[in-house]
Amino acid sequence: MKKIEEKTIHSNRLYEGKIINLKVDDVSLPNGHTSKRELIEHPGAVAIIAITDENKIILVEQYRKALERSLVEIPAGKLEPGEAPEYTAMRELEEETGYTAEKLVKIQTFATSPGFANEVVHLFAATGLSKAINGAVLDDDEFVELMEVTLEDAERMVENERIYDAKTAFAVLWAKQRISIEN
Amino acid sequence: MKKIEEKTIHSNRLYEGKIINLKVDDVSLPNGHTSKRELIEHPGAVAIIAITDENKIILVEQYRKALERSLVEIPAGKLEPGEAPEYTAMRELEEETGYTAEKLVKIQTFATSPGFANEVVHLFAATGLSKAINGAVLDDDEFVELMEVTLEDAERMVENERIYDAKTAFAVLWAKQRISIEN
Repeated sequence: MKKIEEKTIHSNRLYEGKIINLKVDDVSLPNGHTSKRELIEHPGAVAIIAITDENKIILVEQYRKALERSLVEIPAGKLEPGEAPEYTAMRELEEETGYTAEKLVKIQTFATSPGFANEVVHLFAATGLSKAINGAVLDDDEFVELMEVTLEDAERMVENERIYDAKTAFAVLWAKQRISIEN
Repeated sequence: MKKIEEKTIHSNRLYEGKIINLKVDDVSLPNGHTSKRELIEHPGAVAIIAITDENKIILVEQYRKALERSLVEIPAGKLEPGEAPEYTAMRELEEETGYTAEKLVKIQTFATSPGFANEVVHLFAATGLSKAINGAVLDDDEFVELMEVTLEDAERMVENERIYDAKTAFAVLWAKQRISIEN
């Protein structure tokens, strides 16, 4: 897509944080004009739709300061430098929910906010769940409430926006299609 | 969810931009400890899955500087201050694709990157499409390529990550379920 590419003329890094960085780039547009792009760098994340043997889905509710409310989501977490997404997924599942998975399958990767951020989420499905010996081990600044819901309840929660998170909404639709194909 | 709420102790606004703002908040956690949250403010956006009478979906490919690549997405655009999402959706559909819609139905709203941003996307389905007299009218710094694909092709594009965008992936699964219920 060379003809729609935007070339960087100058990149101005304004903030380097613990999780995100902010830069404002001057870009050259396909028509030769210039514009500014405000861009967030993020290390990327994993998310896991963990499905129990009873076809229940494990959800976590946590406070999301950015939105000043709590959200119900599938377990997720940021990638650590050099960590393979599969490993992060297994680790986050166990830390957030106290479950380990026998089987982890990659569903897909997608960008979450391509208009301003480079965050991508690697989405996995985890099955063959069993309780880890240690239970959930959360980060110092992480407070989550666990719930297990049927796939039908999860679908309703997407429809009525009790699930108000894009990756979780996608994962629930994906699980519904997968299970309706199997049955 | 009072017991998992994070209270703001101090908010430090570091950048106010054209589209996004950055602030770093000191927060008080449920256990009484404090932490920092790096937060992006975004005005919110709409996205439209526009379905032709032949059950084709209109997609736009555009360069996404944040990811340094082009992405294939459903038409989308930022909310302007005071603009109702329905109006933004009709406007963006016409501006980006040159189509007007007889019928616009809200599907749902979701947060895209709740870990660090307050962006929400209001997703709509548009049907009864016809070519607008003026055709597409893009912003000065907007360059998009249009395509119309069957729903089956769009599903494959989600699976093989040619569609690499969360809102678009969700919308394609949603359309598949809606149409398989109707037929």
